[in-house]
Amino acid sequence: MKIKIKGTGITKFGELWSQSLESLASDAALDAIKDSGLEKNQIEAVYVANMIYGKTANQDQLGALIASNLGIKGASLRVEAACASGGLAVHLATQAIMAQSYKNVLVVGVEKMTDVGISEITSALMGAGSESERKAGLTFPGLYALMAKSHMAKYGTTKKHLAAVSVKNHYHASMNEKAQFPFEITEEKALNSPEICSPFTLFDASPITDGAAAVILSSDLTSGSTNNVYITGSAVASDTVDLAARDSLLELRATKEASVKALKQAGVEIKDIDIAEVHDCFTIAEILAMEDLGFCKKGEGGDFIKKGITRLGGKMPVNTSGGLKACGHPVAATGLKQIIEIADQIRGRAGKRQAEGINCGLAHNVGGSGATVVVHIIQS
Amino acid sequence: MKIKIKGTGITKFGELWSQSLESLASDAALDAIKDSGLEKNQIEAVYVANMIYGKTANQDQLGALIASNLGIKGASLRVEAACASGGLAVHLATQAIMAQSYKNVLVVGVEKMTDVGISEITSALMGAGSESERKAGLTFPGLYALMAKSHMAKYGTTKKHLAAVSVKNHYHASMNEKAQFPFEITEEKALNSPEICSPFTLFDASPITDGAAAVILSSDLTSGSTNNVYITGSAVASDTVDLAARDSLLELRATKEASVKALKQAGVEIKDIDIAEVHDCFTIAEILAMEDLGFCKKGEGGDFIKKGITRLGGKMPVNTSGGLKACGHPVAATGLKQIIEIADQIRGRAGKRQAEGINCGLAHNVGGSGATVVVHIIQS
Repeated sequence: MKIKIKGTGITKFGELWSQSLESLASDAALDAIKDSGLEKNQIEAVYVANMIYGKTANQDQLGALIASNLGIKGASLRVEAACASGGLAVHLATQAIMAQSYKNVLVVGVEKMTDVGISEITSALMGAGSESERKAGLTFPGLYALMAKSHMAKYGTTKKHLAAVSVKNHYHASMNEKAQFPFEITEEKALNSPEICSPFTLFDASPITDGAAAVILSSDLTSGSTNNVYITGSAVASDTVDLAARDSLLELRATKEASVKALKQAGVEIKDIDIAEVHDCFTIAEILAMEDLGFCKKGEGGDFIKKGITRLGGKMPVNTSGGLKACGHPVAATGLKQIIEIADQIRGRAGKRQAEGINCGLAHNVGGSGATVVVHIIQS
Repeated sequence: MKIKIKGTGITKFGELWSQSLESLASDAALDAIKDSGLEKNQIEAVYVANMIYGKTANQDQLGALIASNLGIKGASLRVEAACASGGLAVHLATQAIMAQSYKNVLVVGVEKMTDVGISEITSALMGAGSESERKAGLTFPGLYALMAKSHMAKYGTTKKHLAAVSVKNHYHASMNEKAQFPFEITEEKALNSPEICSPFTLFDASPITDGAAAVILSSDLTSGSTNNVYITGSAVASDTVDLAARDSLLELRATKEASVKALKQAGVEIKDIDIAEVHDCFTIAEILAMEDLGFCKKGEGGDFIKKGITRLGGKMPVNTSGGLKACGHPVAATGLKQIIEIADQIRGRAGKRQAEGINCGLAHNVGGSGATVVVHIIQS
């Protein structure tokens, strides 16, 4: 497959109390449209990714709402698969283009999370868990802490390994003006921050964030001057929503399945990947991703990251955007932000955090504790 | 396009207090799988349509949940576009098959509405309206009543025209064992039932319903013995969510756009349609649908229905399932039920309500007050 990323747009990520969900979505979309060089009437469909606005603001049918705000007629819809909603909307848009339903599709991921009470947002996010997990009083820090504890017990992964993820991603975010937390932290700071759920401290967790990100995907493969970047693989896999129903807490099976499929579509191997954005909702998730995607062996993810291989300047930078941890995590916008970061790195638009010689990247977007995983391969 | 409807399944529609959303979804899906003759491991993706369960039960990521309940691995996702969610999920599944992503896709539409308090469900449904409509205190009966009042003022449509829709659809439902209200009503009963929102009486409105419906779509076009029925057109169009922002209250623009596109894809004209299921959430909506789809001229929908043309035995039966009015309206299941009804009529499976000589049908699914419309053409 070969689908052009014809334009991208992204808002500041953070606590954006002066902006509504609708204004964030429009801002990102209008930037993407401008970047694409298309007129609005050339965009035939609007795919919107959103998880929680139906619950927190009682606004559904967001596809039609955002499309009509933009003055775009044609098809529109909303996709939801918890934190993987953004990647999934892109996946569906690539299918629509391959099916020749549309030439140009706008995909917008947006979330407005910070102007909701903390217990309401915690409850809303647990919609991505199972009923039994909710009844047991589990939260997402708790679910990922179970995976972290298992990994530590089996493979000797330490809190310092976890902190290495956070320190690296904050370093990257310090060079990203769109990031929610654009500052560096030390290992000491990460380790000594308040414990939120053993073994996690505050700096092991991604934050609550407002933000939007948008891409224009196109079947137009003619080479423009700046935007020669393409999605060449796009795959989804799923697993049980209930963590307790899985065979293992040491891996996300859906990550393996989606990545194998996406790499095959693109005709590349994992060793060909120059850069990756992975779903570090908690630090352990980035360690699991390194292993499950095949960048290193199972159990060695902590050391792999601690060695600096995935730090900017290393052999294969990971989460140069700052990741969910430091760039922020407006749930359904995250999957789009990951793809935009890879596209920017390929096009040499990443500013201070530009990596060298980037031709092929991977974006890895996870829903819940791994029930949905979407993997995209992006190439020059 | 040509996509095979390889299997269908549908639960009873009604107040199903002994069943959960998950059990309803599984029941419909398992029936569809059995009907298709496929093994579960031949189904590569599960597309779930649902509007309100995230709000009323805080359960998101329904794609993965329902897929794992069924023991189906592979891709899964949830689609939402208010009451058009079901048609939209089918539309996306046809795209995925045309894109050659999957050979066999299970599409499930499911809703559990009756075990929620009446103010909570009314509020949840208004998620399909705009913020200004919610702030104005409007409900969906109110929104469609505005359209009905306009139609009456402009074209002389009467309450008897509205009642004719309800009487016909109850007649059809009386022959459908899956229907929520399988009984006939008289014009007198409809006209004298309590007024819920002028000009509507109780019998002008579709009910709150539990239920699920599922189809297996397939790229396998080999002719089996019983299931030779195909989707040959599938299109979506959208409009403003806010009714007040439209040019006219006398039509649904998105119905026109989606139907023109779907008919073109199928290579048929509106005169070739033998049967239709249209979105009669309120009686006026069926009148508008007759006109906007082009079965009759604008303003003549009421007479067109009152003449009996769309009653079983008439030239072009409409809503032989009983429609949303009498079969019931489990929001996201409705779009799938419509397609199943047409498929059953084509395959001669419609029992007591079987129409004669049915080869080509149209299914028309509307979200909110017309912000999203999905039209499918189904042929033998």
